[in-house]
Amino acid sequence: MIAAHPASDNLEPQPMPRNILYAQSGGVTAVINASACGVIETARRHPEAFCKVFAARDGILGVLNEELYDLSLEEADQIAALRHTPGGAFGSCRVDLDDPADNPGQYARLLEVLRVHDIGTFCYNGGGGSMLTAAKVARFARANGLDLSVIGIPKTIDNDLPQTDTSPGFGSAAKYIATSVREVSLDLAAMAGTSTKVFILEVMGRHAGWLAAGAGLAFEENDDSPLILLLAEVDFDEARFLAKLDAVVARHGWCIVVAAEGLMCGEQFCAQAATSETFGHEQLGGLAPRLARLTRQRGYKTHWAVSDYFQRSARHLASRVDVEQAYACGAAAVSFALEGRSDVMVAIRRTSCEPYLWSLEGVPLDEVADVELPVPPEYIRADGYGITPEARRYLRPLIQGEDIPPFRDGLPHFAELRLQRAEKRLPPWTGKP
Amino acid sequence: MIAAHPASDNLEPQPMPRNILYAQSGGVTAVINASACGVIETARRHPEAFCKVFAARDGILGVLNEELYDLSLEEADQIAALRHTPGGAFGSCRVDLDDPADNPGQYARLLEVLRVHDIGTFCYNGGGGSMLTAAKVARFARANGLDLSVIGIPKTIDNDLPQTDTSPGFGSAAKYIATSVREVSLDLAAMAGTSTKVFILEVMGRHAGWLAAGAGLAFEENDDSPLILLLAEVDFDEARFLAKLDAVVARHGWCIVVAAEGLMCGEQFCAQAATSETFGHEQLGGLAPRLARLTRQRGYKTHWAVSDYFQRSARHLASRVDVEQAYACGAAAVSFALEGRSDVMVAIRRTSCEPYLWSLEGVPLDEVADVELPVPPEYIRADGYGITPEARRYLRPLIQGEDIPPFRDGLPHFAELRLQRAEKRLPPWTGKP
Repeated sequence: MIAAHPASDNLEPQPMPRNILYAQSGGVTAVINASACGVIETARRHPEAFCKVFAARDGILGVLNEELYDLSLEEADQIAALRHTPGGAFGSCRVDLDDPADNPGQYARLLEVLRVHDIGTFCYNGGGGSMLTAAKVARFARANGLDLSVIGIPKTIDNDLPQTDTSPGFGSAAKYIATSVREVSLDLAAMAGTSTKVFILEVMGRHAGWLAAGAGLAFEENDDSPLILLLAEVDFDEARFLAKLDAVVARHGWCIVVAAEGLMCGEQFCAQAATSETFGHEQLGGLAPRLARLTRQRGYKTHWAVSDYFQRSARHLASRVDVEQAYACGAAAVSFALEGRSDVMVAIRRTSCEPYLWSLEGVPLDEVADVELPVPPEYIRADGYGITPEARRYLRPLIQGEDIPPFRDGLPHFAELRLQRAEKRLPPWTGKP
Repeated sequence: MIAAHPASDNLEPQPMPRNILYAQSGGVTAVINASACGVIETARRHPEAFCKVFAARDGILGVLNEELYDLSLEEADQIAALRHTPGGAFGSCRVDLDDPADNPGQYARLLEVLRVHDIGTFCYNGGGGSMLTAAKVARFARANGLDLSVIGIPKTIDNDLPQTDTSPGFGSAAKYIATSVREVSLDLAAMAGTSTKVFILEVMGRHAGWLAAGAGLAFEENDDSPLILLLAEVDFDEARFLAKLDAVVARHGWCIVVAAEGLMCGEQFCAQAATSETFGHEQLGGLAPRLARLTRQRGYKTHWAVSDYFQRSARHLASRVDVEQAYACGAAAVSFALEGRSDVMVAIRRTSCEPYLWSLEGVPLDEVADVELPVPPEYIRADGYGITPEARRYLRPLIQGEDIPPFRDGLPHFAELRLQRAEKRLPPWTGKP
């Protein structure tokens, strides 16, 4: 796809600018739009290489359905505002591509959409599952002679992506949780004399307890803290937990329990342990109300909270380091494409802990696709209910700094995009999505 | 208790400085310590009238148990830091005084503690129940010739205190909820295409739906918003709710439901409707998981969250107006005592809506004690699922401005008091508390 530059024969032949396609996938975060901002602003600074920036609506689905937003129609100030806007501005999806052998029509359609819109770069922003989709696109493009640079941009509050120091989204969620736990501890300390003695918080983390581990930052390094962490990596033992709870309440007068939603009771999730003796009858609720039943039976007045989407959309409390990394990962994706790289995910490499220094590199998509990284044993305190000093050294840099969005009329004010669709050039797709 | 001034006979006889006692009662808030700060800093500026400031540990219990913190031993910078510290720095309680006829020993003890520590002013900081306790103290003091100024300081996130424009604590909780709902709406909008379509948030409000109403500020004035409010004041009707939900999802693709914990199903709390047909079997959880069961049965992928203590301790997102009012109410309590007033609660009077202007006045404790003010009908939209423009005019000023606490090492840094106990002068109290 090299075309001779028309203006002068003194110059080397230059590639014609082509279009870049960006999409968001998986659960969104407080900072995934900062990555989008990094992609778009960087691409706009390189008109010699990039013509239009498109964003697919709802991730890979938008590519298949040819539902593309033409971001060349957006004002620069609104693109800049994406940096402080939570959620996924272009829509996300929980859909992956099939294997090419199972659904060749899907890939033929993909090829068609990418070709008709002259997409030269495809940036896919998501977690492990999304990197698998990106890897499939890259492999198929290569096999079919499509001149396409596929770059993955990491994103997940679960922090379970391998090969990167952290994933944008995690630091902000961890900061939100640690801050909330610190604040609530003062409430609980005030009430414990005559009222609530146990507070239980359920946090996200289906297969990894990184966010629960992050809560450990709420208190100073101390084996004797008023906090019990229930990580997904440590099998739940009711008797041991209650003994620990008794000890903490005896020592401090109160206790905060932070539990990963993926806490395991043997072979099954505790939250789904339908009729176990541990948790009694079938329940609607998640893990927190089940644990609260246990602690109430133990005689402690208990309050419980479930942060759910709040922990991943609380942009008002984002970590500045996280926002900077999210933006930089988006910008680096475009730089990698400019260098002609493909089939890599932007990864963060920690070069120093204190001060926290990091650089960006590309790691092969295949090495990160669909791999989940749990909290390693050396980060988990010997009793299983806390984090080690090593974990603190790892976690603390990730929550540093604030990056408060502008407030208007008492509430944060976020980007307002036009989201104009690019004209469709293909008939509607009727294949299996 | 007027003593001649010893230094000069040219001066009028001056009262000897006496001590002031402050205590916190009921559920604490993000800004009750700002009221404490207002009390302590104002009293310190009047050494001619006040000798020491004491704080009772755990509200009225600390008075009965003669557990008093001597705040003269605290550094000025830590007292100042109370302004941005959530929780209740001196401990709170959920205990009220008995009626004097039922428990005369309790009152005799009270009198004894107040006398032996030369308490001339008693400031009680709490909600409706706490104002009843304050009223009882005032009445008993008057009946027994004790020279005591009793001043109530309002506090409750529930906003259900009468005779005051609002209660410190509410504005910050409402700002937290409205901000969180606005942020989460962007998350939900991104996911709704292929995943979650309904998000349910349970907020506090056992008998009044003020906090749920506050969530209405998250979206612009619009009868057609993607938000359904379930207020404690509006009887829950399952069929109507589901029809409304269908309409909202059809219109927007997704829906946020904010429900007051005190939502009623006829004569009982929906959250306690043990075996109703509406909600199925007995459940552990609160209201949110029960509502989520309904919406899932309706076919919508649903996420739910319970803010619980977070909504009242999220000092990082406090309303500046709320902080200012909390501080001013504490300061005014001391000013009222200086003027020789007693048996009043500091109340906020709104003198203008735009701009929001307010002043402070004293209202008789008896008029606020144990009275709960629900959301009035004119603030509730005709369909019961939203708020009116009039409600917005009332609510909006209360969430204005930010007052972000100092952060250190990535987390908010709060006051660190010494909390040294004043020496006990009485034998331990063995009476019925």
